[in-house]
Amino acid sequence: MLNTLYLPELREMLQHQDAEGLRVFCETLHPSRTADFMAGLTSSEQWRVIQPAELDTRTLIFSFLDWDQQIQIVSEEDLGEVALVIADLPSDDRVDLLNDVDPAIVKRLLDLLPVEERRDIMRLSQYPEGTAGAVMTTDVVRLKIDGTVRSALDELADQANDSEMVYYLFVVDEGNFLRGVVSARELVSAMRHPDQLLSEIMKTDLIAARVMDDQEKVAELVARIDLLAIPIVDDRGRLLGIVTHDDIIDVVLEEATEDAQQMAAVQPLEDSYMRTSVFELSWKRGVWLAILFLCSLFTAVALQQFQGEVLPWMIAFIPLVISSGGNSGSQSATLIITAMSRGDVSLKDWKKVVAREINMGLLLGGALALMGLATMYMFPTVLAEGSFAKFVVPLTLFLIVMAGTLTGSVLPLVFNKIGWDPAIMSNPLVAGIMDVLGIVIYVKVATLILT
Amino acid sequence: MLNTLYLPELREMLQHQDAEGLRVFCETLHPSRTADFMAGLTSSEQWRVIQPAELDTRTLIFSFLDWDQQIQIVSEEDLGEVALVIADLPSDDRVDLLNDVDPAIVKRLLDLLPVEERRDIMRLSQYPEGTAGAVMTTDVVRLKIDGTVRSALDELADQANDSEMVYYLFVVDEGNFLRGVVSARELVSAMRHPDQLLSEIMKTDLIAARVMDDQEKVAELVARIDLLAIPIVDDRGRLLGIVTHDDIIDVVLEEATEDAQQMAAVQPLEDSYMRTSVFELSWKRGVWLAILFLCSLFTAVALQQFQGEVLPWMIAFIPLVISSGGNSGSQSATLIITAMSRGDVSLKDWKKVVAREINMGLLLGGALALMGLATMYMFPTVLAEGSFAKFVVPLTLFLIVMAGTLTGSVLPLVFNKIGWDPAIMSNPLVAGIMDVLGIVIYVKVATLILT
Repeated sequence: MLNTLYLPELREMLQHQDAEGLRVFCETLHPSRTADFMAGLTSSEQWRVIQPAELDTRTLIFSFLDWDQQIQIVSEEDLGEVALVIADLPSDDRVDLLNDVDPAIVKRLLDLLPVEERRDIMRLSQYPEGTAGAVMTTDVVRLKIDGTVRSALDELADQANDSEMVYYLFVVDEGNFLRGVVSARELVSAMRHPDQLLSEIMKTDLIAARVMDDQEKVAELVARIDLLAIPIVDDRGRLLGIVTHDDIIDVVLEEATEDAQQMAAVQPLEDSYMRTSVFELSWKRGVWLAILFLCSLFTAVALQQFQGEVLPWMIAFIPLVISSGGNSGSQSATLIITAMSRGDVSLKDWKKVVAREINMGLLLGGALALMGLATMYMFPTVLAEGSFAKFVVPLTLFLIVMAGTLTGSVLPLVFNKIGWDPAIMSNPLVAGIMDVLGIVIYVKVATLILT
Repeated sequence: MLNTLYLPELREMLQHQDAEGLRVFCETLHPSRTADFMAGLTSSEQWRVIQPAELDTRTLIFSFLDWDQQIQIVSEEDLGEVALVIADLPSDDRVDLLNDVDPAIVKRLLDLLPVEERRDIMRLSQYPEGTAGAVMTTDVVRLKIDGTVRSALDELADQANDSEMVYYLFVVDEGNFLRGVVSARELVSAMRHPDQLLSEIMKTDLIAARVMDDQEKVAELVARIDLLAIPIVDDRGRLLGIVTHDDIIDVVLEEATEDAQQMAAVQPLEDSYMRTSVFELSWKRGVWLAILFLCSLFTAVALQQFQGEVLPWMIAFIPLVISSGGNSGSQSATLIITAMSRGDVSLKDWKKVVAREINMGLLLGGALALMGLATMYMFPTVLAEGSFAKFVVPLTLFLIVMAGTLTGSVLPLVFNKIGWDPAIMSNPLVAGIMDVLGIVIYVKVATLILT
């Protein structure tokens, strides 16, 4: 919902170059709300509105603008002014932003940044997508190991404005090796003994991640032990940066979206749906559609093989039979995949899982068989085939639902065992398998009952 | 993976009642790791291992134990000792835990708690599942509005150990009305002017949520503006508690799991897969399976209606045709649903979305039609039907994929428009619609081409 409340006033202040009025507007509200109120302006107007504000506020409001508008501002506005804000952004966010900007502009912009920031951007942008390094920020409070509580508090007051996460303070030695951590909470508690050494109050059993670790693993770790931030170290244990709680939420959301897409046979998108081109989307869907098409060919071959055995009255129920198998299979697959990704189910539980799914298959298959039997009385053509014909579809339903729950639960476990992502196109693949299996079961049941 | 490294040593210390050794074990490592190392012990052994540790450490380690083992400890160990840990747990976590314990034991346990804690538990457990109230904690640092920086720092040092989130300090007036917020960062920055009034440095443009707000909405808000915690107020604006970053991650994970389950036609589970009974699971799946079964009946009726028009050679390709429609439809539905839940797509984008999906339908349908045409040369029975027969399946594939992408993208938008959750059984429902539509298109195309 676009909030247009302040737009006329803002435009008037811009026209009259009312710097004081704009500054007050920018500094009164929470930066995210200020950004919301400006959503109806062009990116150029937005940029001019925030110029009179202090740099910190300007950067914060900028970071809450729409992504596309941030990119437009970097691409079109005065690079000298843009460089100030870029230098002030959290180090991980600006790398993400610059990744989406025309490289020619990025090159000119980098030349305008202080050498330290430039190096930082170059270094961070080298970590591959999906690693801890790609989501970490280098804005971290470092304390020297020979410091005291007093010197740490002083340092904290100095660094508080430049660092993204000031509530965990990392203690390093001369070689920048991570030696301990002190929380701001502990530092404040120790305030009454200012001469105490940091090395006495710091925790040394550190939970850290390596810079090349998978971001999903890092997120799981942080989510499990409720950290605000996790330190990221290199192979030798030197402190490179931290991944903060807000980045963890982003990773969790990203991974959940990827899983959902994989389960529906779409290769995970690297960008949002709207910003991915139709060609790229088609490619990411087409690959799997083609594979599933080839799976379906088996069903066609099977059906042709059985042509003589599929009686005319049976044709009408082919989709009913195979989709019941597909649906119960997708249900099982989704339940097992989400349970595995939440850590509720692991490979060693496979016997328990299979036993539960067999029980569910019995219950659900039984229920659907009863519904199927009742349904047969709606089809006079079936009843006309003799007193046994009406049992063909119900018995098939029972068996196919059993087969669906089993396939749907075992497939993700097998994928996991051989090291694949269990989510890979699980639902359509299960449905594809159920198509072939459904035809075979249907024909075999019919032959058995009717002869 | 069970870590058995310390188990023999721990068991020996238990046997010799080596309290000092156990205390050192408990206090050396991060509490989450201590809990991991104890995973191989019985719940009773775990409880005895942590007894010698200080209460804070004991509570922390306890909170990292397996959920089932926490419940077992509360149910079986000495309630006097259990009450100490329960009183020390974050207020939201203990309510969750007690919800899973036998009510008779909870009643006895409540009698052993200080009256304040008892009232707090009673109050929190009244908020319905899924509201902000149900995930909030009441352990929050409150500062008086007439205080100074110095008094706030003192207060903070006192409250630091009892509060879950000490990094946001909420300023309230005599009526407990929320008036402002000061971050610990700001307080530390202001440390050099200790006589400054809190009312001068606090932020008054507060971002808060109501206690009955949907937890999903609260999580979205926090994720968007990167808060560590959000204050929760009643209808009149009085501070009741906070929802912290770690609870937000839990909510995000819970909602993603619910979405995935709904997309696969499973009613969201209230508990994990393993802790939900087979009967409850069967019910949550059976309801939707039955609805989808009724949808499939339409396909059966349609097929029976067209019995004369479905030529024998066409039967083999029925599953191929309908599953291609179902797969492309689920792809679209999943893409749109995940994009909507991430905020990338909203209702007002519907024209753009439909245009993109039509383009994708053209590309994907065209590709599948070509594959279909090539395939026909593998089926001599089709080629024998005359020179036009081989075009029936390809043209049907083209149209059904177009219909699939359209249905899959429009259905979630329509659901959203009428106020339903777009995720509700979207994938199987789309597949069900494509079954009927697939049959109709297949028959119509055949009639058109062959006559």
